[in-house]
Amino acid sequence: MSNKPKIAVFGSGSWATAIVKMLCENMETVGWYIRSEQSLEYIQENKHNPNYLTSVEFHIDQLKLSNDINEMIDYADYLIFVIPSAFVHQELAKITTSFEGKILFSAIKGIIPESGLIVGEHFHDILKVPFENIGVITGPCHAEEVALERLSYLTIACRDENKAEIIGNSLASRYIKTKTSDDIIGTEYAAMLKNIYAIAAGIAHGLGYGDNFQSVLMSNSIREMKRFIKKVHKMKRNINNSAYLGDLLVTGYSTFSRNRMFGNMIGKGYTVKSAQFEMVMVAEGYYATKSAFELNQKNGAKTPIIDTVYRILYEGKNPKKQFKKLTDLLD
Amino acid sequence: MSNKPKIAVFGSGSWATAIVKMLCENMETVGWYIRSEQSLEYIQENKHNPNYLTSVEFHIDQLKLSNDINEMIDYADYLIFVIPSAFVHQELAKITTSFEGKILFSAIKGIIPESGLIVGEHFHDILKVPFENIGVITGPCHAEEVALERLSYLTIACRDENKAEIIGNSLASRYIKTKTSDDIIGTEYAAMLKNIYAIAAGIAHGLGYGDNFQSVLMSNSIREMKRFIKKVHKMKRNINNSAYLGDLLVTGYSTFSRNRMFGNMIGKGYTVKSAQFEMVMVAEGYYATKSAFELNQKNGAKTPIIDTVYRILYEGKNPKKQFKKLTDLLD
Repeated sequence: MSNKPKIAVFGSGSWATAIVKMLCENMETVGWYIRSEQSLEYIQENKHNPNYLTSVEFHIDQLKLSNDINEMIDYADYLIFVIPSAFVHQELAKITTSFEGKILFSAIKGIIPESGLIVGEHFHDILKVPFENIGVITGPCHAEEVALERLSYLTIACRDENKAEIIGNSLASRYIKTKTSDDIIGTEYAAMLKNIYAIAAGIAHGLGYGDNFQSVLMSNSIREMKRFIKKVHKMKRNINNSAYLGDLLVTGYSTFSRNRMFGNMIGKGYTVKSAQFEMVMVAEGYYATKSAFELNQKNGAKTPIIDTVYRILYEGKNPKKQFKKLTDLLD
Repeated sequence: MSNKPKIAVFGSGSWATAIVKMLCENMETVGWYIRSEQSLEYIQENKHNPNYLTSVEFHIDQLKLSNDINEMIDYADYLIFVIPSAFVHQELAKITTSFEGKILFSAIKGIIPESGLIVGEHFHDILKVPFENIGVITGPCHAEEVALERLSYLTIACRDENKAEIIGNSLASRYIKTKTSDDIIGTEYAAMLKNIYAIAAGIAHGLGYGDNFQSVLMSNSIREMKRFIKKVHKMKRNINNSAYLGDLLVTGYSTFSRNRMFGNMIGKGYTVKSAQFEMVMVAEGYYATKSAFELNQKNGAKTPIIDTVYRILYEGKNPKKQFKKLTDLLD
């Protein structure tokens, strides 16, 4: 296995922890950058993450742990970023070493608030990484089910499909199946947009709409997602593939999704501020809504669901009235 | 309202009861054929169905009730059939009057076991009704949510879209939105196929597969449904419309669906016979599986999910092993 490229994961949330677990099924050594020294020491002593997927036990000698981001970048050939999008900017600011020749994968699923870009675009536009060296890891996949080793499917996207395959093979195991795609822009936008639709699903639920409406909302969401992505990056894609529709469904129908929960509180009458205050971490879809709405002002796709969520979250509009109007635009 | 056509509903299950309720929002008089004299008398006395949606109260003077199927056919211009598919044949056998000039709508969602045909085809091929006089009412719609007056969307399909519109307008109300379609074959096959996919979802759940897999299964199901229907009746349709994808989702994600429940028992280790014995009524998807599988032997669409369910239900194959194989065919 010594010919295998060196891979490192950056981040210590539940999804990062799940990806480290997957890699440990195949690799002799997995790099793992953890910002907090405390968390790092905890893992070294207790062999599991102190805060997420605590049931997942690691072989410490298989992990190359560090809280020095530059050291970890220098170590690895493939860098998998799994930092919440709201913290990516401040983490990247610490970097003094070079990305030259490095291959950057994003498993972040969100917009970087400071640039308003999806992570792949941010890597390309801001960090000047060529698209051939940028990839995306996408679900449908709840980290909690990886911890339970329940069968899950991942899509690994990269313009250079060889690189997608290398990461795919490193993640695949008896409970993980992977496929590759060359649609890095589309899969990453899908992963971001689904969080907006999950907020919409949550608002609908909070307002008392039922399962019949939910299915109509999801049916409209996938059509809207298709129109939105087509304007951003037109190419041949089947929007019903797992990376798009599957990812929408696993989030939209999940009662554990942070985005859906956030929407549910809004639907039940919380203000945006009070809903955010109640949640330990801001739902990714909150930022995604603003970026998607603004981007689409230029692109002009028909996106009644995104528009509705935007008006509720950013213009203080009444959720009940906005959804009443939305119901007339769906079919 | 006296210029409106006369409409009658045939059947007394939950979906029939829900449709009568919708019509009562718009019509002065709604015809309702109920086979059982006892049920009919109960409704006359107690103003609600004795067995289904018992919370829905009717104005008795708005209903034209009868347990004579011929009398009801003679009365109405539009006949809406909502009899479980397993009983359609024996009900139709009672008919001595003529269907001449009558417009037949099906809200049955299943295969007639005796002919192996969907209801629209059965009306056409066996009863010799022209396609212009045949229509389909399809969801996504749980009857229980109609009882609660939760917003639901219906698709009304007929080659003659004027007739679809007449039924659509008669069903629409503050909690029901309707749209029309000219795809009677596609919508009816979708309504039937979704029950097979709901059985598959149930089997997966019973076997212990999680939400990640479920979303992959649904993503593969809609692609399979598209391939299947395209072979049966090729026309321009958006498979992500509510009548296809929405209907799949509301059933596949419902824990109340009889088909999903049936599949769940199979996944948990019940034999087909014992699972059927436990259920008061046979799940529609059981017959649909056989018909769809056999029909597709001629058509040759790639349908790994239907094939898997068929082998489990009709060839006594082991669910665990069959699903293990299936997971390699999904992506």
